[in-house]
Formats: sequence, structure tokens, C-alpha cells
Amino acid sequence: MDEHDRPGWFTRLVSRRTVLATGTAGLAVPAALALGPASSRHAASAQTGVVKKVTLYAEALPDNQYGYGLAPGQATIPGPVLEIYEGDTLEVTLVNNTDRRMSIHPHGVDYGVESDGSPLNASFNNPGETRTYTWRSREMVATAGRRLMPGNAGYWHYHDHAMGTDHGSLGIARGLYGALVVRRRGDILPDKQFTVVFNEMTINNRVAPDTPMFEANLGQRVEWVAIGHGNQFHTFHLHAHRWADNRTGMLEGLSDPSQVIDNKDLNPGSSFGFQVMAGEGVGPGAWMYHCHVQSHSETGMSGIFLVRNADGTMPPGAQEAIDRFRGHDHGAAAGRGPARGHGQHQHSPSR
Amino acid sequence: MDEHDRPGWFTRLVSRRTVLATGTAGLAVPAALALGPASSRHAASAQTGVVKKVTLYAEALPDNQYGYGLAPGQATIPGPVLEIYEGDTLEVTLVNNTDRRMSIHPHGVDYGVESDGSPLNASFNNPGETRTYTWRSREMVATAGRRLMPGNAGYWHYHDHAMGTDHGSLGIARGLYGALVVRRRGDILPDKQFTVVFNEMTINNRVAPDTPMFEANLGQRVEWVAIGHGNQFHTFHLHAHRWADNRTGMLEGLSDPSQVIDNKDLNPGSSFGFQVMAGEGVGPGAWMYHCHVQSHSETGMSGIFLVRNADGTMPPGAQEAIDRFRGHDHGAAAGRGPARGHGQHQHSPSR
Amino acid sequence: MDEHDRPGWFTRLVSRRTVLATGTAGLAVPAALALGPASSRHAASAQTGVVKKVTLYAEALPDNQYGYGLAPGQATIPGPVLEIYEGDTLEVTLVNNTDRRMSIHPHGVDYGVESDGSPLNASFNNPGETRTYTWRSREMVATAGRRLMPGNAGYWHYHDHAMGTDHGSLGIARGLYGALVVRRRGDILPDKQFTVVFNEMTINNRVAPDTPMFEANLGQRVEWVAIGHGNQFHTFHLHAHRWADNRTGMLEGLSDPSQVIDNKDLNPGSSFGFQVMAGEGVGPGAWMYHCHVQSHSETGMSGIFLVRNADGTMPPGAQEAIDRFRGHDHGAAAGRGPARGHGQHQHSPSR
Repeated sequence: MDEHDRPGWFTRLVSRRTVLATGTAGLAVPAALALGPASSRHAASAQTGVVKKVTLYAEALPDNQYGYGLAPGQATIPGPVLEIYEGDTLEVTLVNNTDRRMSIHPHGVDYGVESDGSPLNASFNNPGETRTYTWRSREMVATAGRRLMPGNAGYWHYHDHAMGTDHGSLGIARGLYGALVVRRRGDILPDKQFTVVFNEMTINNRVAPDTPMFEANLGQRVEWVAIGHGNQFHTFHLHAHRWADNRTGMLEGLSDPSQVIDNKDLNPGSSFGFQVMAGEGVGPGAWMYHCHVQSHSETGMSGIFLVRNADGTMPPGAQEAIDRFRGHDHGAAAGRGPARGHGQHQHSPSR
Repeated sequence: MDEHDRPGWFTRLVSRRTVLATGTAGLAVPAALALGPASSRHAASAQTGVVKKVTLYAEALPDNQYGYGLAPGQATIPGPVLEIYEGDTLEVTLVNNTDRRMSIHPHGVDYGVESDGSPLNASFNNPGETRTYTWRSREMVATAGRRLMPGNAGYWHYHDHAMGTDHGSLGIARGLYGALVVRRRGDILPDKQFTVVFNEMTINNRVAPDTPMFEANLGQRVEWVAIGHGNQFHTFHLHAHRWADNRTGMLEGLSDPSQVIDNKDLNPGSSFGFQVMAGEGVGPGAWMYHCHVQSHSETGMSGIFLVRNADGTMPPGAQEAIDRFRGHDHGAAAGRGPARGHGQHQHSPSR
Repeated sequence: MDEHDRPGWFTRLVSRRTVLATGTAGLAVPAALALGPASSRHAASAQTGVVKKVTLYAEALPDNQYGYGLAPGQATIPGPVLEIYEGDTLEVTLVNNTDRRMSIHPHGVDYGVESDGSPLNASFNNPGETRTYTWRSREMVATAGRRLMPGNAGYWHYHDHAMGTDHGSLGIARGLYGALVVRRRGDILPDKQFTVVFNEMTINNRVAPDTPMFEANLGQRVEWVAIGHGNQFHTFHLHAHRWADNRTGMLEGLSDPSQVIDNKDLNPGSSFGFQVMAGEGVGPGAWMYHCHVQSHSETGMSGIFLVRNADGTMPPGAQEAIDRFRGHDHGAAAGRGPARGHGQHQHSPSR
């Protein structure tokens, strides 16, 4: 499974530079200039409190799947990563090009009942309908009692809440989900970003060996966004890398009490994110990521994180490992047709 | 489902001002003077290290359920919220008015084997028996090695540990559980407090649309205490509100590393709590709370958090949402008879 | 079940003082001089960045089980606790004395693909084969952006990743697992250390009343290392003791935001650890530890933490409780033959 053989493997977010009177309409991705292995270490900086606009197109995909995309014919599973900074507003115009009722419901941001995305609040798109959902965010605020009410920064997600039932179970099962990242100013931007959704007994609605192979070069800063969906419990495990079990995956200081982990519960509706330096301290190679529930990894919830050499060449043994993985019999691995989008994208400059 | 139509919907804790020689016997609720939206922002303060006494009556309820109550005939599911401050002792006199062996076992506090509430330690009430269980608490203490052994502050819970089996599985399944809150001095008291117990495939032993509708006015400080029980795994999700995944749900400072979440695992024996400002940044309305395991929300583990306008009036669209919810078909929603107590109570002055 | 009746109940790690040119080869246990209740309060100190070597022997045990041991004929379930300090390297020479392919795969430490322990990377032992796996570790390091990439300190674990399938499901099911502790310099060493593995529907591959009875004297500092394996979800609950849900179980300071808990999810591939002072604030006695999933505790996932008097004598009622536990009918409790090692060992000086 070579990503370069797959058109659309990268979910590239096209920049839109239209400026509106009410604010700055841009891409739902933070500014990040010339993000290479060197420059990406710089902290994020972006205009404060802007209004960003994005249009998502929901459409049917082969094999009874559905996806969200940034343009007609470009739907992917998972949908595109949407990113804002705390303080920004994101106006999501959802075009429903499917023949079913559906919606978009976000986690972690602020929205009125009209943008809830739930049938409970009559907030959804009928077939063919276009509707705009407004998501707001804010920074932490002081409260009486010497504590702070948290802001919206986090590794969140969005998903359908209306297809099939009032809870969107059908839409979620068939692929209508994606990552939503809200950053604090000063957060470190990654070089690459992967979205991993443990959805029922699949990863991004695929099973091994057809699960996404995520790739980075040795030393690149890689951001993982992990999301759980469906009806099963799962645990996400990544070989040879670890992270702090907190907001960023990094320690905030010498006395940060966070446990460091390499395995974490990833249950329906939950999400978390973290950054690792690819292969740091362990070297390049084909590293497994998988659900650690044994019967789940056995039946297809397993994939490869390919850490190439720093110059992008293949490290010794990696191709053999990949070939082994492809030939590896995962009982439940049903064949699937070609799909667009596997949750991986290069972080690229947006303005 | 209008709470005002239900006698006993609020679990009001009646103040008992009997003073004992050995300490202050009062209600198992912190002092909180004139708790309105304005004054509730004041931090808690209470007498240090008092002995509080409470009598709980266990009794049968309709539909093969059981409950704990503060007076005969007043049992509810969940039982009353018991609250103390770190340093306090709570003497719980349990009157077993059922015809089965049962007990009360707390999480988070200190107790000797005789107050363990387990048959293992011969600590239970036979039918008709009255027994006093003593729960102590303390503040954090320094230890060698520059770390602190934690105190007892937390959003805990209590439950039967003796009905049916030595693990109390029958008592728990039928409703013998409740919230236990141990506060640190200085903790912020809420205006309202809700107890949500995900027990097997129910919320507080009820299924939608008969699940509790929790109510608050816009801007009120609302405390949620979430408890898991039974044999299933669950995830608790609240729409349009979020909290820090730490002791209080709020950030302790600018460098608090806690992840901010709106969805959290809620598995048997676990509990957590947090405070939100009702509708802050999102406005009033009928907001869903539910288990995010799709098949669980589909079959009844869903309810409404009604955020009214600041003056208590209904916001536009809220009644329609409630009507929609009531008419909403939840496959497994079995009819249940009237029950007392749904885990909601107004925080009121106790001394 | 009296531990003194069982040879090998304590997994004593024999010191090996061979010094190699490339570093210090010693036992995989931190230096801890004269660890009694008094001296154990001293913080750990050890030579920086040493290379430690340990040889593990995998072998078949009765009842179709397998185990890792420090010498031929000494395999236990769980295997021996392996301990290093951040900065140390551990060279694990694994002798496969079974007739199946197997391996050792660690969580939390750094290793190259050749030490991955996975068939994906052709890293395993064929029957009869000896292979050395190298695990490295490091302290946290500063990164651009004012955050720290975490080091390797943690309560980790190791397990087979090759027996039966490419995910080691068979090896794990049959007992090939153990605890791996990586300490930060300055961490507090315990007096006693227990390893509790919730593996499928067992504790350390045993069911009640044959589960391990862990013992300590009142006031001893006891370290619990909890590990999850298999295909079920679990929650670990300990009566009358609690801990902070962070790296150490203790609070790092007055503003440590960690929730204090006594019940925690323990799902496949996850692990955590904490220290408690045995019986502090609650007194000696027979305290239950168990999975809080009701059907799991009912069918055998329950055991006893026996806190003796400070002088080691039995407290009143404890023997009766133990007798009750032994006679207690746990439906699924299948008889098992004698096994060596139950995850308990006295922390003892190693150099």
C-alpha cells in the first residue's frame, strides 16, 4: 500500500483567500509558513478572533459509504481536518449531496441550538439542502474562586447526528466523521498530521491490510488525532513512541504530573491528540499502530506508521515489513474498493 | 416531562441542626448561604473537621426497584447526594426497611473494616436491621520525597455491596446507589447539582424519554456528578458544554495540562464531576446529554439538559425540542411507573 | 491462601553483580538499600545511564500456561518485575524454552525495529532460540515552543507479541506478560510491590478464590502496578485506599489538578501504577480489590489485600474474612493447579 499510488491519499486543504467584510474568511487551518522539518518548530501565530468559512460537501462513496469533502467529488473518510485557533469562529456551510437527511455536529466548540446538528433541535440538512452551522470558540476565562473555566482548545471531532436515526448512528457507521482541532495561540504546529478513527471494528472504515499507512521522515513532528466511534470499546497503541496523557501530549513543565502512555482508551465519542518526533530515539522503520484489544487487532484493526530515513528514503527492512503486513491474513479483512482520503495530510501554508 | 409535575423530583435535603457533644451533627451538605446565581460564586467555607450524621432508609420501590432516602417513604433513585468537606466525618445510620440483606459501601473516603459495607468483612444490614457506618476524611499530607499523599476530596459515590451476592450486583442493578461529594475548603459551590448514573442500559434506572430532564437558568453554575455501574461500558457526552478532565472540571492555572473534554468514559465503579455555567457562550435551549455508544443512545440512554432563559422562562424552540424528545421512539424504552428522585437538586443553605 | 505456604510466591530477583566493560550489568531493579518501612522513604538514587542485563527464560507451565522467569524452571505468571531508571539501557536476553514461536515486546521504552518483538519486523524467538532485545530510555527533553517531550518514566509492561498469531494473542492469554517500571531519579521506592494483571476474565490468569492475596504491614509503602490484557474491558477497584490519577499516584504539589480515584479503567494494553500507605487512616484488615464490572467480580475477578498489624500479626477478623473469601462461591472459579508467582515481591537491595 503505497500512498503515492493513490490519488487523493493526501487530504490537501486548498487555501481560499476571499476576505469578507465581517472578518477573514480563510481556510480552516492555522497559518503555518513553510512547514518543513526545521521551520515547523516555530510556535503557531495567527490573526486573533477571525471568522473562517468552509464549505463541506456530503456525498455517497462506493461500498455504501458516505463522506464529507471540501469540493464536490472530493469526499473522504475521514473528512478533512478542520482547524481554528481559540477565539476564532468557523462557519461551516454544509451541502448535502446525498439522498438522506444528515447533519454535522461538532465536539468541543460553542454553538447555538440552531447549529447543534441534532434532529432534537431541528438542526440538520434534508436531502439536497444547504445549511450553515456556526461554531465559535474562546480562550479560558477566570472565574470567582481562583479557577479558570476552560477554553475550547482541544483535539476534537465532528460527525453526522441525523442520518438514519436521531443519533446519526448510520451516518457515523458509514463514514461521516472527521477531526476538528482548536489550538491555543503558541501551540506548536506539526509537520504532518494523521487522523485515526476507531469506528466499530475498523480504522477509518477500513480493515488491515487496507488500513492507512501513515508516513513521515525521521525527526518530523507528527501529530496524531485519534477519535472513537461506534459500539465497541477500543485501546489505541503505537509502537516505539509515547506521549503525555494531557492536552498536548507534551509536558508543560518539570512538575507536570501527567502519566506518560503509549496505549489509551478510544471509546465512542472520545478523542485525543498528541505529537511525536517520528522515530526519535528508536530510528526509522515500519512501526505498528493498532487496537490493543486482541481480537480487534487480530481481525483488522492494525496499520503501519512508516518512518522513513531523514532524507525520505526507505530504511532497511521496512519494505519487507510492509510486504509481510500486506500478505498477513487478517480474518475479517474484507476487500474494499478504492477510497479517497485516509486521514493523512501534509501541513501546508495556508496564508 | 416537566419536573414541576413530579412531587419529589427535587431531592431536597432537609436540614437537621442537632448538635452533638462530639461535634456538629448537621446535614451532609456544605454550608452555602443564599445560593443564588450571584452569591454562589463565593467559595465554600465550613467548620473544620466536624462530625456529621445522616440516617438513610433503604426501601423497596415500585417495579422491583430499591432506593435510599432521607426519611421513610422518601427513597429515590439515585439516593440523596451526601456531601462533606475534607476533614469531616460522616456517620451514616442505615435503616434497612427491605426484606433483603443489603449495605452501603462508599468510594473515596476512609473507613474501617466494620464500615466496609461488604459481606467479606461481615459489614452489612440484615433485613430490618439498623447499622451505623463511619466514613472519615482528611486533607492531603506531605510525605518524604517531596510529594503529597492525596486527601479524600472528589466526586465519589456510594452503593450497596451485599444484596443478592457478596458484590451487591442485585442492589446496584435495582437502584441502590448515589453520589458522595467530598470538597476541599475553598472549592466553588454550585447553584444546582445533577447526579447522572449510567447503570447497565439506563440512566438513573430509567430509559428515554423517561430519563431525567435536568434544568437550570442561563448562567447558573451547574455541577454534574457522573457515576458508572453495571456490566456495560459507557461514554458520557454533554452537548454544547465542556470541562477539564481533572479534579474539578476547571483549570487550576494557566499551565494546568489537563485535556478539555465533552465526552468521557463512565464505566462501572468510576465517577467524576465538573461544573459548567449553563448555556454560557451557546445560549439557552434543550441540550442533549447521552451515552455516546451509539446503540446505547439509540435504545434509551439519552436525556435533556434544559437551559432556560436567565429569568427562568422557556427559550424559543425548547418546548418543541422536548415534545420531539418525548415522541421520539427509543426502541428499548420500556414504560415505568412513577418514580421519586432523578438526581437533581437545588443547592440550598443548610446551616 | 497463605503466601508462606507457596514456594516462589515471592518473585525474588536475584542480584547479579557481573560488571561489563560497557557499563554496569546488574539486576533490573533500582538500587534500594535496606528497604524497610523506615528507610524506604528515602528517594531513589542510582548510577546514571547504566546498561543492565537480564536473562529471561520462557517456558511452559502446567494447565497450558506459559511464563517468563529469571532462571530455568522459575517461570511465573506474571513474569518478574523489570525496573530501570530513566537513562538506563536494559538488555533482555530471552531464552525460548518453549516449542512455539514467541517474543517479548515492551511498552514505554525505546527500541529499534530489531527489538520490536513483532513478527512484522521479524523480531521474535523461534522455538529453542535465544535472542537479545535492547530497551533504551531517556529523560524528558526540552523542545521548541516551551514544552517538553516526555521521557520514559512510567508503570509499563512487557508481553509476548508472536505466539500463535502476529499479535501474540495466544501468548498473552496463557501468561506471557509482566510489569516494567521506569523510574525518574528521585522517585520514591516502595517497601512492597504488587503486579495485578486483568487478563480476560482472570487476575494474573487465576480466578477467585485462587487469586493472589497481597500482603503488607500497616504503614508500609505499597506499590501497585496494574496491567490490562485480553478482550474485555475492566475497572480496577481497591477498597479503603485511593490515589491520584497521574504518573505516581501522589500529588506533585498543592495545585496538582489530578483527580483522586479508587477505581480506574484497566483495558487491554494499558497500565498504571501508584503507591499507598497500607491501611493508613483505615486500619489493618482484609481489603478487597476487584474488577468493578459486576459480572466480572461475581465470576472471580476479586482478591484480598491483607493489611496486617504493624508488627506483622493478624488483625482481628482478618482470618475470618479470608476464610469467608475462600469458601465464597465464585461461579466461574475453575480449579487450577499450583502456580509459581503471583505478582508480589518484597523490594530488596540489589547492589
